[in-house]
Amino acid sequence: MAREGILIVVSGFSGAGKGTIMKELTGRYEQYALSVSATTRTARPGEEEGKDYFFKSQEEFEQMISNGALIEYACYVGNYYGTPRAYVEEMLLQGKDVVLEIEIQGARKIREQFPEAVLLFVTTKDAQVLKERLMKRGTESREVIEQRLLRAVQESEGIEEYDYLVVNDELDACVEQIHSIIEGEHRRIRYNMKLVSKVREELRSFAKGE
Amino acid sequence: MAREGILIVVSGFSGAGKGTIMKELTGRYEQYALSVSATTRTARPGEEEGKDYFFKSQEEFEQMISNGALIEYACYVGNYYGTPRAYVEEMLLQGKDVVLEIEIQGARKIREQFPEAVLLFVTTKDAQVLKERLMKRGTESREVIEQRLLRAVQESEGIEEYDYLVVNDELDACVEQIHSIIEGEHRRIRYNMKLVSKVREELRSFAKGE
Repeated sequence: MAREGILIVVSGFSGAGKGTIMKELTGRYEQYALSVSATTRTARPGEEEGKDYFFKSQEEFEQMISNGALIEYACYVGNYYGTPRAYVEEMLLQGKDVVLEIEIQGARKIREQFPEAVLLFVTTKDAQVLKERLMKRGTESREVIEQRLLRAVQESEGIEEYDYLVVNDELDACVEQIHSIIEGEHRRIRYNMKLVSKVREELRSFAKGE
Repeated sequence: MAREGILIVVSGFSGAGKGTIMKELTGRYEQYALSVSATTRTARPGEEEGKDYFFKSQEEFEQMISNGALIEYACYVGNYYGTPRAYVEEMLLQGKDVVLEIEIQGARKIREQFPEAVLLFVTTKDAQVLKERLMKRGTESREVIEQRLLRAVQESEGIEEYDYLVVNDELDACVEQIHSIIEGEHRRIRYNMKLVSKVREELRSFAKGE
């Protein structure tokens, strides 16, 4: 019997390596499907339609909102970002574990609609590593980096609402830790009631001497 | 920093192999401490005081009850069985994951007192395996076996109250699955708030340009 898919929300500090972790996780294990967001921001060089984002006009995006075609959406720096509902629901039906990389506001909306979703927060072992990674990108001024660090502080305010904290110290270990958490979630009683009922019925008939 | 210990309740069908699993789990990983029950039943040949059970007189046991020295206790077939509180609390303080092998009534009492305890239920993949294992013991009449199967049906009524279902199909895989579930539990946000607070503080001071 095919098992039920689990919806997984991954949030984390800028610079904690969410993107790399998710590429690695979905590359290693076929059970995962990575949700692709819709956005109204313009594509950056190298970004592919349907792979990095679904690029939409403001009108198209607002049409999706009013059609209920997005599970969650938010506005950052004047652009919309949202999660198309159809892909997520289709993949869950197929038994895939669907991974969403979104922030706290989105995570809250997911939890409202999918109470059994698993919310993961990715951090580094200290803030020094985050600072260094942001500085290494090299393109940002000191002010921008300080803004990002301040935003990271704000991001961290919602951590208590998440289920699990994953420390990205060593990429490979971190990916395996996430996979192991999800495999554990699949062992939850609610996903295994078919097996429970089957064994229960068999026991009943044996006990009757059948 | 030493991590907090987790209290783990393992229940399961008679014949599902709980005893073997727990010996294997605690033998493989030092992080686990196996709780030893107190009982008023007489020792069977080969059973050791303090290893298999703490053997108590009825008076001693009832004294423990009135002193609050037991976390939970129950009466089966005219004998008391209970979990001494001191050992469990001492091991948890030391950061050990403490494993209790008890039944549903006991599991409920544990959950009341330790809401964060992890409740695991062990089953085989079907009832046929259970029946065969009970029959292989060879010492029991058909009637006794049917009684045990009936009791297994009753045991299964409380399964929905457990957190995880573990299938003991292959011992090694089963032990690793349990270990993996517990390692996942250690990643829960509530056990990692010290790290979260530390990173948060560091981010704050970096954002201030310190």
